[in-house]
Amino acid sequence: MADDIRVLKGHGTGNDFVILPDFDGALDVTAQMVGSLCDRRFGLGGDGLLRVVRSERCDDPQAQGAEFFMDYRNADGSLAQMCGNGIRVFARFLVDEGLADPAGMEIATRGGVRHVRRLRDGEYAVGMGEAREVGGVASVMVSNRSYPAVGVHLPNPHAVAFVGALDAAGPLLSAPEVSPEHLFPEGVNVEFVVEVAAGHIEMRVHERGVGETWSCGTGACAAVWAARRRPGASDSEIYRVDVPGGTLHVREVEGQFELIGPAVIVADGVLDAEWAAAWR
Amino acid sequence: MADDIRVLKGHGTGNDFVILPDFDGALDVTAQMVGSLCDRRFGLGGDGLLRVVRSERCDDPQAQGAEFFMDYRNADGSLAQMCGNGIRVFARFLVDEGLADPAGMEIATRGGVRHVRRLRDGEYAVGMGEAREVGGVASVMVSNRSYPAVGVHLPNPHAVAFVGALDAAGPLLSAPEVSPEHLFPEGVNVEFVVEVAAGHIEMRVHERGVGETWSCGTGACAAVWAARRRPGASDSEIYRVDVPGGTLHVREVEGQFELIGPAVIVADGVLDAEWAAAWR
Repeated sequence: MADDIRVLKGHGTGNDFVILPDFDGALDVTAQMVGSLCDRRFGLGGDGLLRVVRSERCDDPQAQGAEFFMDYRNADGSLAQMCGNGIRVFARFLVDEGLADPAGMEIATRGGVRHVRRLRDGEYAVGMGEAREVGGVASVMVSNRSYPAVGVHLPNPHAVAFVGALDAAGPLLSAPEVSPEHLFPEGVNVEFVVEVAAGHIEMRVHERGVGETWSCGTGACAAVWAARRRPGASDSEIYRVDVPGGTLHVREVEGQFELIGPAVIVADGVLDAEWAAAWR
Repeated sequence: MADDIRVLKGHGTGNDFVILPDFDGALDVTAQMVGSLCDRRFGLGGDGLLRVVRSERCDDPQAQGAEFFMDYRNADGSLAQMCGNGIRVFARFLVDEGLADPAGMEIATRGGVRHVRRLRDGEYAVGMGEAREVGGVASVMVSNRSYPAVGVHLPNPHAVAFVGALDAAGPLLSAPEVSPEHLFPEGVNVEFVVEVAAGHIEMRVHERGVGETWSCGTGACAAVWAARRRPGASDSEIYRVDVPGGTLHVREVEGQFELIGPAVIVADGVLDAEWAAAWR
């Protein structure tokens, strides 16, 4: 039927998404629709929704500078700027559809235009921009223990703490306390990092407003930024970062970060017409 | 492609399922495959998987007495007998495909052959069989308070406790303590029930081995069995049962229970070939 609404499900290191191809911007994507699609029991389920729309067919002011715009929404329907895991899945979708050159493509996002390319092993590499250090010494308190932390913007705020073992952070049911508060007036994502070997770290992350997640692309970059600046750190240009949802790699070249990781499509289909009618 | 594996996602009052049409029994459904499909982040997500297979093409000894067999698996890959919410979704799928008469159909399950029919409002009614009372007085302890409970098999074990308000049971993070233990040697599902009006109850359920769930079909029948036997109870033949995931109705006629509720299909598609190759 011409009325069928196509949807896909995909993930990048366990950060999962509903992909909604809407090339011509024909859908009126409401917060209710996003919430219904991302609901894990009553819908398809996902951390967020990636609407694929041609920039020229989208009235978002950020939809410019590239043929396709990643209209990313959080599961609660709110607008989001960028997502290092989501944009890989978005790029994989464009490549699978024959709509982008895997050797290199630009994708417009609410966080600006990003460059993405497919590597020979099928993983995708995304330009993540620069890191900006937060001055001052921070500390992170978790499970009644305090760890020193460094602050960095990428451009969202991160506090990175090196720990002896990842389970030291406990179940991370609530946000770790980061002080002094004035360093992070808009809240902060917290990374707990263990150095496994030269150029290889393992981390867990608590995302502000979300909780512990399976993976965080900017968090991985923040952790590598911090790891490379530790005394005696490996000068390896590329770091392996193990997150609970899989493995990412981060490359830092002349202050520019690149995030590398898998982009998985699980299934491709159409919404049931009766189900879709509920929010049309 | 001939190799495409079709999958659907559906739910009944928030109890959600991956539907895997495999009419000719061509798929070798392993526990790993079920776990991958039901994983909420790395797969499609669901409480369980409903494989749709012709009885004559399935070597399960229970696959008999009806054209189609509901090969139901829990999300961990283990075999399951029956599911009052799942079988409605299974029946809806058969009707949508033109493979069953909505006015009445038989479906083979590991719990025996069940009769299912579509009602005029689009909901589905399932024969759930008889209830068998558990002798002796039980009590349920939750949030440091004890409630009297009645025990009933349907045929899985239930302890039904009437409470003043559903939030009295607290967050139900762990299994309520039911005593005396010898009444339920195989463990027990616990229903907390509030009488809203004549013929109308509201309930929450803690399923053994699972935790609190959005809905439980046999639990709804058990709660109505108990409600109809209370002093001064409504002699209404049909009861409305509000569960956290929606509304069910339960009819008791000559000791036979019938469960009525919605059957929702969310989406219909195919697995990504690369993703599916991982467990083939």
